[in-house]
Amino acid sequence: MRRGVYAGSFDPVTNGHLWMIEHGVQLFDEMIIAIGENPDKRYTFSQDERLAMLRETTAHLPNLRVETFENRFLVDYAREEGAHYILRGIREAADYEFERKMRYVNADLAPHIDTVFLMPPREIAEISSTMVKGLVGPHGWEGVVRQYVPTAVFERLLHWQAQG
Amino acid sequence: MRRGVYAGSFDPVTNGHLWMIEHGVQLFDEMIIAIGENPDKRYTFSQDERLAMLRETTAHLPNLRVETFENRFLVDYAREEGAHYILRGIREAADYEFERKMRYVNADLAPHIDTVFLMPPREIAEISSTMVKGLVGPHGWEGVVRQYVPTAVFERLLHWQAQG
Amino acid sequence: MRRGVYAGSFDPVTNGHLWMIEHGVQLFDEMIIAIGENPDKRYTFSQDERLAMLRETTAHLPNLRVETFENRFLVDYAREEGAHYILRGIREAADYEFERKMRYVNADLAPHIDTVFLMPPREIAEISSTMVKGLVGPHGWEGVVRQYVPTAVFERLLHWQAQG
Amino acid sequence: MRRGVYAGSFDPVTNGHLWMIEHGVQLFDEMIIAIGENPDKRYTFSQDERLAMLRETTAHLPNLRVETFENRFLVDYAREEGAHYILRGIREAADYEFERKMRYVNADLAPHIDTVFLMPPREIAEISSTMVKGLVGPHGWEGVVRQYVPTAVFERLLHWQAQG
Amino acid sequence: MRRGVYAGSFDPVTNGHLWMIEHGVQLFDEMIIAIGENPDKRYTFSQDERLAMLRETTAHLPNLRVETFENRFLVDYAREEGAHYILRGIREAADYEFERKMRYVNADLAPHIDTVFLMPPREIAEISSTMVKGLVGPHGWEGVVRQYVPTAVFERLLHWQAQG
Amino acid sequence: MRRGVYAGSFDPVTNGHLWMIEHGVQLFDEMIIAIGENPDKRYTFSQDERLAMLRETTAHLPNLRVETFENRFLVDYAREEGAHYILRGIREAADYEFERKMRYVNADLAPHIDTVFLMPPREIAEISSTMVKGLVGPHGWEGVVRQYVPTAVFERLLHWQAQG
Repeated sequence: MRRGVYAGSFDPVTNGHLWMIEHGVQLFDEMIIAIGENPDKRYTFSQDERLAMLRETTAHLPNLRVETFENRFLVDYAREEGAHYILRGIREAADYEFERKMRYVNADLAPHIDTVFLMPPREIAEISSTMVKGLVGPHGWEGVVRQYVPTAVFERLLHWQAQG
Repeated sequence: MRRGVYAGSFDPVTNGHLWMIEHGVQLFDEMIIAIGENPDKRYTFSQDERLAMLRETTAHLPNLRVETFENRFLVDYAREEGAHYILRGIREAADYEFERKMRYVNADLAPHIDTVFLMPPREIAEISSTMVKGLVGPHGWEGVVRQYVPTAVFERLLHWQAQG
Repeated sequence: MRRGVYAGSFDPVTNGHLWMIEHGVQLFDEMIIAIGENPDKRYTFSQDERLAMLRETTAHLPNLRVETFENRFLVDYAREEGAHYILRGIREAADYEFERKMRYVNADLAPHIDTVFLMPPREIAEISSTMVKGLVGPHGWEGVVRQYVPTAVFERLLHWQAQG
Repeated sequence: MRRGVYAGSFDPVTNGHLWMIEHGVQLFDEMIIAIGENPDKRYTFSQDERLAMLRETTAHLPNLRVETFENRFLVDYAREEGAHYILRGIREAADYEFERKMRYVNADLAPHIDTVFLMPPREIAEISSTMVKGLVGPHGWEGVVRQYVPTAVFERLLHWQAQG
Repeated sequence: MRRGVYAGSFDPVTNGHLWMIEHGVQLFDEMIIAIGENPDKRYTFSQDERLAMLRETTAHLPNLRVETFENRFLVDYAREEGAHYILRGIREAADYEFERKMRYVNADLAPHIDTVFLMPPREIAEISSTMVKGLVGPHGWEGVVRQYVPTAVFERLLHWQAQG
Repeated sequence: MRRGVYAGSFDPVTNGHLWMIEHGVQLFDEMIIAIGENPDKRYTFSQDERLAMLRETTAHLPNLRVETFENRFLVDYAREEGAHYILRGIREAADYEFERKMRYVNADLAPHIDTVFLMPPREIAEISSTMVKGLVGPHGWEGVVRQYVPTAVFERLLHWQAQG
């Protein structure tokens, strides 16, 4: 059985993440979506909210579970979960350089775990959680943000912005 | 069932190709190794020789067949063979730029075929068929070439060089 | 008056070229489309055909003329035509590196001519004349090619392919 | 009428910025220099000082006004000001990757605004406001800094350093 | 006499640094290892510890001295020490872009000082002080860290981690 | 004694090459300039002419000899000549990617030979033999070419062009 891990902050989950998850679910027999929790980092949405958003937006997908992991290397986590694959997206040249470095170091740490790369389509290659949060505001970009995130996330973003 | 295609000239097959094939066989339920035949290109080894070398060096691998394809796009070939995955290796930044372009165009042509990327380990990242052929010769690099290709290929390279 | 030159082989003109031309026409008071003719290069379409295709597909645009230039540097040609701007498209990192080099050399040659860069939208960033010609053939990609070139060019491509 | 916006922190304005402005003034019928004010960022020079330095060093240029804009996207600002062009400089590969991303996102937000790129000459390609501030100090680099910034800025830098 | 300077934070020294130092010692008649001390930066190991680790791990090398320098440009320091060469390692494309910029600026500052570049072997190209510190911890990567740093550093890392 | 090899086609030698040679002569105790002769390549200037141009333009430099080498790997040649260093110039990102690959392969072949890199100043970073030949002609670029090559080469280029 091929089990893959796809990790991130998902603060919040975007259509770019969803594309990766939907294609990961097809590629592997089982997918674990792992929400990283770094104590030194401040998140816009709480771990519970991020978990809820991911579960809600991936509810239609089979063979997938959403988990959290804290304070350890991703290859560590993958090994404990019995996953032999780490799934990563490459969107641009800077991603590529970073991913190459990580892939080589990860192979030093855990030679039996492979990193598998997909490239999201060009229409969503620029989307990131940070960008999406920057676009929500009093400037009328709602129509654009709606193209970048799932509906459930869009509503939470509006709510977050209204409270901001 | 997940069927993947890994294509190339394999003129000759190197340890870099073999690494890709061995990891592709684990990732997919079935792998097709497709030897491209371009009428405008001159090959060092005939199609029969390349086929023989690939079959010989992959004989220990399950769920794999070696085929040839001529004069058409790889996505065309994949579609006809019922494969939903194209497997590609990325070894360096120039590869990355080329692969990104191909991946986007291939998605225009065949949206239901995904391209999956692996990065070979750094020790074999520079190996190419062209480089290997350049190293066989009167200069005493046999010891190095032996690290870069399977034994069966090494012997054919020596034979080719002796006839050169 | 701002006069700009946009040069290329246009063998044949694609939607990528057209995007550049349409945006150049807005940016400059007058645009010259310059079809380069390099005696050492073999073209698929004759100079007359390329001229006809460009004139036909840009007939709706104001302040534009299509010319040919032979056997000289583009900055030379621009200078003779009284143009102070060279217009260039950047589609990917490799383009960027090449264009930077050309821009610096051109400034050594003709300090009073500026090079102005536009980036075509991502949907057409991979289109090139070479790619388009490769897609016309017995493999059923006509639908895709139709998205990549103007209608007048599409018909000529089919005709060229039929004669192949 | 072609109106372009060139935005930045200008903390302080350098010869690299000035080159961009001088060439922007030639390219567009009217240029707006927009000093971005980000409440989360700490500036070395106050908004008033940056405004004064820019006005002083561009006083010789026609068809130009210097403004400030706060807390919004540049395309928003451009739209409100009736500008159809954003002017950006590309100095190196990392700039290029960032600019490509911004250009694509900006086109999603405001399809009718074009981004136009210029490349400053190689002699000033490395100059940045941060670098210039780092060079002012007790180490005798004044002669070098003088080549990198307009005279009015040089004097303010010395004054700032003396107070430091 | 050719005197070269190799500078860094060395927080702590890794096998990547050591490779650079061992090859620098062969290339130059005299090498100065310069530990930069930036008052705005927080270090894991004190200046005394970093000095001790460097001296200990380079004790077998001839024609080398370890120094500290504070609060000034490296070319300044090199000039004062009568060194005509700055030695730098390039490990990846991002390093290259940064080093090119620094090399050009340094040449503006001190035209008689050359920057000489070496590329460490691929097995150690990803090692950095930051990465090494991240790997020491309760996750069992000690075996890997042992390959990345000299023994004396490994023991200090364990001690630091135990106290952490 | 440190002996270095700097190899190339030198067809013809440019100011970019000369910069490398002048700095190599300072860095090493002895420099060998090695003119590569590849039987499959067509040269503009004969081996004798290239040898003469190099000897003439480097006559003022000490500790240097100009040689030719044929039909073998550069590391082979270096080893036979007792050189422990290969000197290479990096002018742009594409050079860097190529040089990294070569450096790793060369280390597999000859672990005791180091590759040392210099970056020529930005004013000459774009100069290449091919570009220089392209600029000689009926278009009046002689003034520019004069800045790119030594005088002795400039005269030969004019002579070559006149014979065209």
